[in-house]
Amino acid sequence: MSNTTHACPLCAEVGGLLIVERPQWRVVRVADADFPAFYRVIWQPHVAEFSDLDLAARSACMEVVYRIEQVLRQALAPAKLNLASLGNMVPHLHWHVIARFDWDSHFPNPIWGERQRTLATPAEARLPLPLAQLDDQLRAALLFTTR
Amino acid sequence: MSNTTHACPLCAEVGGLLIVERPQWRVVRVADADFPAFYRVIWQPHVAEFSDLDLAARSACMEVVYRIEQVLRQALAPAKLNLASLGNMVPHLHWHVIARFDWDSHFPNPIWGERQRTLATPAEARLPLPLAQLDDQLRAALLFTTR
Repeated sequence: MSNTTHACPLCAEVGGLLIVERPQWRVVRVADADFPAFYRVIWQPHVAEFSDLDLAARSACMEVVYRIEQVLRQALAPAKLNLASLGNMVPHLHWHVIARFDWDSHFPNPIWGERQRTLATPAEARLPLPLAQLDDQLRAALLFTTR
Repeated sequence: MSNTTHACPLCAEVGGLLIVERPQWRVVRVADADFPAFYRVIWQPHVAEFSDLDLAARSACMEVVYRIEQVLRQALAPAKLNLASLGNMVPHLHWHVIARFDWDSHFPNPIWGERQRTLATPAEARLPLPLAQLDDQLRAALLFTTR
């Protein structure tokens, strides 16, 4: 299996605002006005499925997901964390880590479900801290490994 | 934190067709005509988030998710596996493990997204083996631990 493929957008592009990059994975913040605290863990080699990773890689991947979730919980006190690895459109392993709030546009639906409401103020403005500070907290939490 | 709560449907009910049960987790098959190869890993103690688990529990949980994914890939050769821990409506930790096919009702959308097509034959009839056999393969793959 090759490590990159030019037809894959997650091989060709960063895929968001780069927060941390390591040889095995990178974390980006997704630009989504409805869900401002939305990060992705992208596995660097081009593999489609979680089960394409060996045990050490799966553990490393979920440690990153876990650390992002922890920071989002502590910084934002969201109603719920949503984790997902779908990839039906872009079959390159990536995990969505999304802080959800009871006031957000789609809650309690999944972000891919039906919109429930329109917000009078931008979602980002309702977060208890600026996104740049949240990004910094994530960078600090993701210093645990150089791999 | 109490281990069960009577207000929680995943504490009160099995939540699907029981495939395997262990002290820490159970696996059920979800009754969904559109997505017949749809399993859930339900964490037995009542916790809301993946990050409520310690490292050993997170590893055990993801090992179960991984083994289900492996069986579904080998038995069904799906277009994609979808993994998700959402819980906005039922905040009791559970993982969705869903085999997706390019012919299924919602592909390439998430199962929570907009329907793409109506099937002339039931989705279950298009699987390469009966669900009871798939359940048996999962039971065999989940014998790895008694915890």
